[in-house]
Amino acid sequence: MTFINQLVHQDEFVGFYLLKELELKQTNGTPPKDYFDIMLGDSSGQISAKYWDVSPTDKETFFPMMLVKIKGLAHLYREKLQVKITQIRKVMPEDGVSLTDFIRSAPIRPVDLIHTISQVVESIQDKEIKTIVAFCVDKVGEKLSHYPAAKTHHHAYFAGLAYHIVRMLEIGEFICKQRPFLNPDFIKAGIILHDIAKPEEMIAQLGIVSDYSVQGKLLGHISMAATWITEAALYNDIDLQSQRVIGLQHLVLSHHNLGEWGSPVQPQTPEAVALHYIDTLDARLQMVEDALDSTPESESWTPFIRGLENKPIYRLKL
Amino acid sequence: MTFINQLVHQDEFVGFYLLKELELKQTNGTPPKDYFDIMLGDSSGQISAKYWDVSPTDKETFFPMMLVKIKGLAHLYREKLQVKITQIRKVMPEDGVSLTDFIRSAPIRPVDLIHTISQVVESIQDKEIKTIVAFCVDKVGEKLSHYPAAKTHHHAYFAGLAYHIVRMLEIGEFICKQRPFLNPDFIKAGIILHDIAKPEEMIAQLGIVSDYSVQGKLLGHISMAATWITEAALYNDIDLQSQRVIGLQHLVLSHHNLGEWGSPVQPQTPEAVALHYIDTLDARLQMVEDALDSTPESESWTPFIRGLENKPIYRLKL
Amino acid sequence: MTFINQLVHQDEFVGFYLLKELELKQTNGTPPKDYFDIMLGDSSGQISAKYWDVSPTDKETFFPMMLVKIKGLAHLYREKLQVKITQIRKVMPEDGVSLTDFIRSAPIRPVDLIHTISQVVESIQDKEIKTIVAFCVDKVGEKLSHYPAAKTHHHAYFAGLAYHIVRMLEIGEFICKQRPFLNPDFIKAGIILHDIAKPEEMIAQLGIVSDYSVQGKLLGHISMAATWITEAALYNDIDLQSQRVIGLQHLVLSHHNLGEWGSPVQPQTPEAVALHYIDTLDARLQMVEDALDSTPESESWTPFIRGLENKPIYRLKL
Amino acid sequence: MTFINQLVHQDEFVGFYLLKELELKQTNGTPPKDYFDIMLGDSSGQISAKYWDVSPTDKETFFPMMLVKIKGLAHLYREKLQVKITQIRKVMPEDGVSLTDFIRSAPIRPVDLIHTISQVVESIQDKEIKTIVAFCVDKVGEKLSHYPAAKTHHHAYFAGLAYHIVRMLEIGEFICKQRPFLNPDFIKAGIILHDIAKPEEMIAQLGIVSDYSVQGKLLGHISMAATWITEAALYNDIDLQSQRVIGLQHLVLSHHNLGEWGSPVQPQTPEAVALHYIDTLDARLQMVEDALDSTPESESWTPFIRGLENKPIYRLKL
Amino acid sequence: MTFINQLVHQDEFVGFYLLKELELKQTNGTPPKDYFDIMLGDSSGQISAKYWDVSPTDKETFFPMMLVKIKGLAHLYREKLQVKITQIRKVMPEDGVSLTDFIRSAPIRPVDLIHTISQVVESIQDKEIKTIVAFCVDKVGEKLSHYPAAKTHHHAYFAGLAYHIVRMLEIGEFICKQRPFLNPDFIKAGIILHDIAKPEEMIAQLGIVSDYSVQGKLLGHISMAATWITEAALYNDIDLQSQRVIGLQHLVLSHHNLGEWGSPVQPQTPEAVALHYIDTLDARLQMVEDALDSTPESESWTPFIRGLENKPIYRLKL
Amino acid sequence: MTFINQLVHQDEFVGFYLLKELELKQTNGTPPKDYFDIMLGDSSGQISAKYWDVSPTDKETFFPMMLVKIKGLAHLYREKLQVKITQIRKVMPEDGVSLTDFIRSAPIRPVDLIHTISQVVESIQDKEIKTIVAFCVDKVGEKLSHYPAAKTHHHAYFAGLAYHIVRMLEIGEFICKQRPFLNPDFIKAGIILHDIAKPEEMIAQLGIVSDYSVQGKLLGHISMAATWITEAALYNDIDLQSQRVIGLQHLVLSHHNLGEWGSPVQPQTPEAVALHYIDTLDARLQMVEDALDSTPESESWTPFIRGLENKPIYRLKL
Repeated sequence: MTFINQLVHQDEFVGFYLLKELELKQTNGTPPKDYFDIMLGDSSGQISAKYWDVSPTDKETFFPMMLVKIKGLAHLYREKLQVKITQIRKVMPEDGVSLTDFIRSAPIRPVDLIHTISQVVESIQDKEIKTIVAFCVDKVGEKLSHYPAAKTHHHAYFAGLAYHIVRMLEIGEFICKQRPFLNPDFIKAGIILHDIAKPEEMIAQLGIVSDYSVQGKLLGHISMAATWITEAALYNDIDLQSQRVIGLQHLVLSHHNLGEWGSPVQPQTPEAVALHYIDTLDARLQMVEDALDSTPESESWTPFIRGLENKPIYRLKL
Repeated sequence: MTFINQLVHQDEFVGFYLLKELELKQTNGTPPKDYFDIMLGDSSGQISAKYWDVSPTDKETFFPMMLVKIKGLAHLYREKLQVKITQIRKVMPEDGVSLTDFIRSAPIRPVDLIHTISQVVESIQDKEIKTIVAFCVDKVGEKLSHYPAAKTHHHAYFAGLAYHIVRMLEIGEFICKQRPFLNPDFIKAGIILHDIAKPEEMIAQLGIVSDYSVQGKLLGHISMAATWITEAALYNDIDLQSQRVIGLQHLVLSHHNLGEWGSPVQPQTPEAVALHYIDTLDARLQMVEDALDSTPESESWTPFIRGLENKPIYRLKL
Repeated sequence: MTFINQLVHQDEFVGFYLLKELELKQTNGTPPKDYFDIMLGDSSGQISAKYWDVSPTDKETFFPMMLVKIKGLAHLYREKLQVKITQIRKVMPEDGVSLTDFIRSAPIRPVDLIHTISQVVESIQDKEIKTIVAFCVDKVGEKLSHYPAAKTHHHAYFAGLAYHIVRMLEIGEFICKQRPFLNPDFIKAGIILHDIAKPEEMIAQLGIVSDYSVQGKLLGHISMAATWITEAALYNDIDLQSQRVIGLQHLVLSHHNLGEWGSPVQPQTPEAVALHYIDTLDARLQMVEDALDSTPESESWTPFIRGLENKPIYRLKL
Repeated sequence: MTFINQLVHQDEFVGFYLLKELELKQTNGTPPKDYFDIMLGDSSGQISAKYWDVSPTDKETFFPMMLVKIKGLAHLYREKLQVKITQIRKVMPEDGVSLTDFIRSAPIRPVDLIHTISQVVESIQDKEIKTIVAFCVDKVGEKLSHYPAAKTHHHAYFAGLAYHIVRMLEIGEFICKQRPFLNPDFIKAGIILHDIAKPEEMIAQLGIVSDYSVQGKLLGHISMAATWITEAALYNDIDLQSQRVIGLQHLVLSHHNLGEWGSPVQPQTPEAVALHYIDTLDARLQMVEDALDSTPESESWTPFIRGLENKPIYRLKL
Repeated sequence: MTFINQLVHQDEFVGFYLLKELELKQTNGTPPKDYFDIMLGDSSGQISAKYWDVSPTDKETFFPMMLVKIKGLAHLYREKLQVKITQIRKVMPEDGVSLTDFIRSAPIRPVDLIHTISQVVESIQDKEIKTIVAFCVDKVGEKLSHYPAAKTHHHAYFAGLAYHIVRMLEIGEFICKQRPFLNPDFIKAGIILHDIAKPEEMIAQLGIVSDYSVQGKLLGHISMAATWITEAALYNDIDLQSQRVIGLQHLVLSHHNLGEWGSPVQPQTPEAVALHYIDTLDARLQMVEDALDSTPESESWTPFIRGLENKPIYRLKL
Repeated sequence: MTFINQLVHQDEFVGFYLLKELELKQTNGTPPKDYFDIMLGDSSGQISAKYWDVSPTDKETFFPMMLVKIKGLAHLYREKLQVKITQIRKVMPEDGVSLTDFIRSAPIRPVDLIHTISQVVESIQDKEIKTIVAFCVDKVGEKLSHYPAAKTHHHAYFAGLAYHIVRMLEIGEFICKQRPFLNPDFIKAGIILHDIAKPEEMIAQLGIVSDYSVQGKLLGHISMAATWITEAALYNDIDLQSQRVIGLQHLVLSHHNLGEWGSPVQPQTPEAVALHYIDTLDARLQMVEDALDSTPESESWTPFIRGLENKPIYRLKL
């Protein structure tokens, strides 16, 4: 089968793909006719597609986030490549394909990411800090193994959140060595907790965020994580007024740095300052890497990247 | 005795006053001599004072927030009235004066303010909301009867916070009648809870804030109150995910309206919108009233008021 | 007949509606065919509609803001309900329907709103203030009985401006009782005058603003109202330099609070501060109420509301 | 006598000067002694001075804005030149000195500035525009011949406003020739009227603004001038709705360009755009010229200039 | 032939036009049919056009920026005038039409603009300044004779840059006479150099910018011009540290005035202040003039103009 | 001798110190007496001092940045520790003290910092990039071994700039390993060049910046470094249009990220994005470290830190 990012004009092809989006629409003709406006996806990218002859059965058969086998024709439409689907059917068990093969995903396996995070939790020396971090990791549960870190901003794919945490932990380890005045326990805890409530803030499937939850909209992941730390402390008989609890809540609350970016307080401990800038460094460089990866090698410029002052990235030719 | 706001140039006077501020300083002479740089206060206002002949005993005797009897001379210094203290002694029991007579205070007695707030808590119909509000009012304890609402911004005096709450409750009652789509329980709860953690955020004595607490600086009263609601729910077996808990936390978190004003989320329930604007209306009008009260009738303009776009207020003459 | 907000997919219906918008368009076919792109309205809301077989006579017959009788079919198009009109004719006298039944309107009758405003004008104690307010109310004339308060922002419907004034007068009366340092005459006058020039700033019909007038664009309603006060004073031999004239002009000029919101000066009298915050409270809560009213009960979230930090409102479920 | 900008360290000198500022102060000694803290001025600049031996008679004799003859010693104090006054007396008629010789003043005589402005008024072709401009010039009266254009910002000296108008008229004449689509009548009128109410907004003597008037603070010169145009039209039976009246009011209201700079509307006629940028060009270059003039030739950098992004100006050496 | 800005509904016409834009598109029908979506242009303006029956030969024949002869029908489509092309062919030599007749162009011939600029370069008195300016003018070469000054902002047409320079030189000459403290050499040099690198920053043809160059995006014309001055100095043995070189680089670097507008330093020489405001005055008035020119006389309001606070311009009727 | 940060109230001490600042002032007495207002410094910090009995010889003897031996008394003055100097003399050769022992300095020896930087230059693989970097390092010369990185913001001490570069190179090396899409040559070059012109922008002695140079003020170090790259290329026959030259200039020009922070272009290559965030991370953490180092262990809070949203840093107690 052909990967989406390798299709060219006039390719006829057969293969398995994911219906990332599917909408029933009507043509402008009289009478209007039904058709499917589809976004096909695989692990290499996505492409717009049309299926023109929708039968009543089809309407009952095909839904978003379903795997299908299609026969199609790639062609240029208004200067953009598009697919005209000529045949489509649902995937059957004997096809031997699995959903996770078709989605964009972190470059490290979820099981390995979770393993790394668990090991880091284990390595935290301070008992109370370790207890609180472990409680919150437990609370978010298996979602940590597959949730993205954001809807579109950065790490917006399967296991993106865990991947973001793991890369930040690497930077954190380096920085703690370079600058011994930083407390490694707080750095580790801050990195693991800073976005820990995101899986409850967002509603996602297969790494794709469809919406924010009511809690997410009314409270936000930053305040949610702060209350989780209160919960952790209460369940484990840790003094709510202790410097550990306040220190951890401060890390979470301040990690967006400014009020207009969602932080009700600004970083005021050494580790809180470090956390914000480690987070920023990792997120921004991931945006660059993701944009380069999803831009054909033949193009000098990536699309505009919102999180990078809405600028595109240029590939210098050396 | 003479009230401070009635002193005029060349008045010689005797009376009881509060040492609101007291600093030991040295003159520029050689050798430098010790003197006290003092801010005298009573319920009518405050005035700068000097006591030039400080003895070693004096240094051990006089401290800020102490009541004293003084003999003094009011005189103009660089166009401003100032007091030269010629005699000073500590107040003695037989003087029969009490600290609370000397401080700026809300115009309603604390006991009455607390009574009103308690009655409103009682009137909340929803059991869970009432339980949470009562828990938080209990948690802040007797501080609610005397804490100011802010360091300088507005209601910065004895029982200022309770007074602010009570006046807001009056407006809230009116608005709920005018606009029946608002839920009175949430309005009452939001008004009582919105600043409930301020007494833990600030360190105050007799209505005067000397500093913010470590928690206040690292977490802020908004996030603190949100975690108190979590605590209240956990202790009372109320579902943390219930719309009541989320609704109350949202009221508290959003009441500053914008991220740059300290709210990590923006108002997104009818009552949260109402709460923010009731709070603003009451605080701004109190700033006007306080500025007018502390400006001599003979002056047309009050000083500049920070919270009112840094503008002064003019008394129109009709 | 069926109210627009009660139509469901596949309804065939007959009824009277308002052509709120009507545009002649052409299909993409060759040759292109004429059709009407229509916004149907009634007092319950509005819905997009198409009339596909436009004859030359139709083009001469149907125009925006006309009442029609139609036969139609409601159907889902791209997930939104739409109407296909199969028959259409103009309303005839014998149909006994009246334009005002079909438009969105304040919940209080215009005649009652005007009556309330007149009574408040009468109740102003200061002769000169009353004269100036009455002059301006007269100048805007009958438009006060039906103009909206804005194009889209808030109170954007028939008699919206008068309704906004009347609700503000209620709040004003309450606040004057709560805070006796406010002058009721200035509060009343400020509320009635603050938007009094809006009917000259905007061009509206049946509560719907189609455009701003040249004066509205080049001067703005704030400056226009300020010059009306000058006019009122000159015609009534009131001293232009009097504190009354300056006080009233200040109320009008400052009521948007900040330069970036259109006020050339900031509020600097007690009543000007009160006016701005009363105006804000009423306008914001009306935005919430209007958004809730026009969102089906079944939906938890209203659309995004521009004037509320572009946030939607959530209905908590208790 | 010696001009102030020519004094050097250790100069002993005698001459006539203006007491631009005079404050009675006390030394820190015990007992404190009275002295005068003085700002001496002449047409070349100003310098700080002290008079240490103030007698009771002196306190009754010397006041700000008085001309005096002094004997003094210039000396460096904290790296700045200062004057120690050893003798001082009031000017007497036989001294033959006049106040206007001692103040900073526009480089063109007021009588000539007024003459130029009158000629330009005369040259306006449109009768109604000319009538309105003449009315406003009359209304401000003789103040136009001596008022400054601002308190400190630019043209802050005797006849600064008229000088600003005249220089702008020169630029306006040039631009009208270069760009014939501009209407010269509106350009002339806009330039003359844009700041015409400043003499009523500010309280000034000899080109020095001591304060803003109540009207100035509550209405601002922009809105005041707009109402003057209404007044002019009413007294001269000019239609308030005419394009001339609206056009002139628009010029005045929009000339600060942005809401945050005080304009309730933005420029929307060709002449309003031109007026704003001519005003800006003239004001900014005057700030540069005034800063260079009042900085000793020997210094490379002027002080920081608020209106120029708070930057100083450098003299390049060619 | 008919000028584009004179076409009215139902005109059938024949004439020569420029294909400013041409895109091959497909209709929504099944199967989709090819058509050309075209922007026709001549020196009077531009208009949208469709050519419905595109043959395979047509696809090989017609490209953007080509001159064609067409037969067409003007008709209203969705309230806007549009052209339906019925016949189209390439221009042939015997048609005797030339590309430059069909594009929007500065009102002065390029050869005259270049001549004026050269004369001004010649008139610079300081040898080193003249050498550097001449080097940069040479470096940009013939592009100076036809490049626009911007993509859309202002002077966005053939020879727009040279025209902008020449008009600024006129203002500069006037201002140097009015304010003799300005150095005419620096004013002349600053005006010629301020945008001199724009032709290397943008990719343009016939006065129409299609994109920015890589250098333009990564360095920007301001920094590019600063390095050109370094280059000029190095090639001509002029001291890089001289006040002339620094002064010229400062003029270029600071001419956008603020960091957020692209200037890394703010104006700090008299001539740099003048340059910025002369540039602004000329650019803004040209925006007004261009908007008025391209708006039909019958319309009172021009479209919104981005560079003028996104406001439209109104034609007052006197 | 006693280190400054160990002095306590009432200490009498003798030792060698640096006169970091020295100003001749006069007492307020009559006649005023000369005294020195001094900032004493050593490697542990600095302290305010007075020397009351200044003789005419003293005025000729003592100047800022001179080493002296003093006898002094530490005492509290207005709650701050201050030194009263009782004896003072210049350091003599036989004292055996050296200036560099008395100044705040990077924790790594300059010779080692320079060695590291040189090695990194050597390790650049691309010849042209290496040549340009080496040219610029040569151009700044020995200043690189001792200049601070800023006046007050961060790394404001002896060899602060080289230290900042070396720490950034460590982070850069780590990040290049973590993210192989980054080009190590550009990362190394960007780190070394980004602030390379700062020693020409600022005037500093012993790590203390006294002022900015004229070039620094009129051009800024960012634009200066960009022109140095042009110079380097011209002297070494490297194509000015090559991707290497443009890439290096882009790194330097964009490293402040935003226009309002001084960058005329925003980062648009992967390495430019990385450079900005590495720079930020290192600078911010150094601010934290420096603030903690210079705050006594006994204090919980550091002073406010401008570069960290003007917040202080708190030491959590675990």
